[in-house]
Amino acid sequence: MAGRIEARLAELGLTLPEPASPAANYVPYLVARGLVFVSAQGPIWNGEPRYLGRIGAELSLEQGRAAAELTALNLVAQIKRACAGDLDRVRRIVRLGGFINATPTFSQLPQVMDGASDLMVRIFDGAGRHARFVLGAAALPLGLAVAIDAVADVGGR
Amino acid sequence: MAGRIEARLAELGLTLPEPASPAANYVPYLVARGLVFVSAQGPIWNGEPRYLGRIGAELSLEQGRAAAELTALNLVAQIKRACAGDLDRVRRIVRLGGFINATPTFSQLPQVMDGASDLMVRIFDGAGRHARFVLGAAALPLGLAVAIDAVADVGGR
Amino acid sequence: MAGRIEARLAELGLTLPEPASPAANYVPYLVARGLVFVSAQGPIWNGEPRYLGRIGAELSLEQGRAAAELTALNLVAQIKRACAGDLDRVRRIVRLGGFINATPTFSQLPQVMDGASDLMVRIFDGAGRHARFVLGAAALPLGLAVAIDAVADVGGR
Repeated sequence: MAGRIEARLAELGLTLPEPASPAANYVPYLVARGLVFVSAQGPIWNGEPRYLGRIGAELSLEQGRAAAELTALNLVAQIKRACAGDLDRVRRIVRLGGFINATPTFSQLPQVMDGASDLMVRIFDGAGRHARFVLGAAALPLGLAVAIDAVADVGGR
Repeated sequence: MAGRIEARLAELGLTLPEPASPAANYVPYLVARGLVFVSAQGPIWNGEPRYLGRIGAELSLEQGRAAAELTALNLVAQIKRACAGDLDRVRRIVRLGGFINATPTFSQLPQVMDGASDLMVRIFDGAGRHARFVLGAAALPLGLAVAIDAVADVGGR
Repeated sequence: MAGRIEARLAELGLTLPEPASPAANYVPYLVARGLVFVSAQGPIWNGEPRYLGRIGAELSLEQGRAAAELTALNLVAQIKRACAGDLDRVRRIVRLGGFINATPTFSQLPQVMDGASDLMVRIFDGAGRHARFVLGAAALPLGLAVAIDAVADVGGR
């Protein structure tokens, strides 16, 4: 039987991407002390980068927002694996750390990051309301427009 | 009766700013597993940004230090709310993450960040001594000079 | 009697640097809720910075990788102190946060960071596999090429 959060995803018309498996010596997520630490994800759909370049130059604010939303979907896909497929186990999205590939004069970083924050609340309601930071990065892996990492509380010890 | 830390604030002549309430879909702080995760704060006094621009260009090292100190006051104001008003519950400031809006050649980032670190120790003594990181950001929300997030241990489970 | 991890270090021909003691009002590491939070470390050998400058300009990818590896050795040296000298107490390297001093067009940040990730796995095997993020910083303390912070699980409450 599909869970409550899976039903919500369907209701919202959202499909999770295939969670990426890093080729290098690290893991996409890890549970310690009941908290899931998710490695930074990007705006990638099943292995293919969708938003490359700097927001404020090659990309618009709207594209940046969409990039943050797709990045958040990848975070949810990883958290689902950390929960052995059962997103109903998510007690709380604790913290998102947002790294934005933006020009030095682009100051609407919060509006870009809202793409991720809004998605978390649409999916998890109150449990999706998180603490966050957001900053402009001088460079990101692959030239991605956005990278976001996450901490979530999934219960247990 | 005012607590020990409130008395210390008074002794130091420090007033806490009004803690900011984010308009977007995130929270200023959140308690998980006994740890408070505080969203990144800036050098803002009751809603009004006080230090805008890059340190090493529009702003001096001294102004950067003052910006970090004001930012730390905002972190304390959020932690106070997380403790239902009782700062005596703070067991430890665990970690500060410092994002500095600086020119690429400005390398005195630790001295800027010391404005926040020193304030935490003046207020909380040994319990204010934290782990930290500090880096130069390519851009910050609103063009703020400094943004800092925090994790603190406030007891409980 | 030397522990299992110390034997591994010897086998790998690795010597830990002297862990740095910060002059300012923060601590190099701190244990909260069974997690060690390590302040950002740099590619420093016994107090002397070894890699200064930007990767993609003054420094090559290979030098960046070596800088990340030396930085990780400094993290291990701090974690050892946090474990009262007994690295066998490390249950898991939980998360590494990588800040790379790179030119805006340098996108091989993951390959630089792999210098640190690979070292953790060589030393701690499966317990060294961590979550991570990596970004290009606009500036780093002292002009260091790399700075990395860490969270590790060392048991206890």
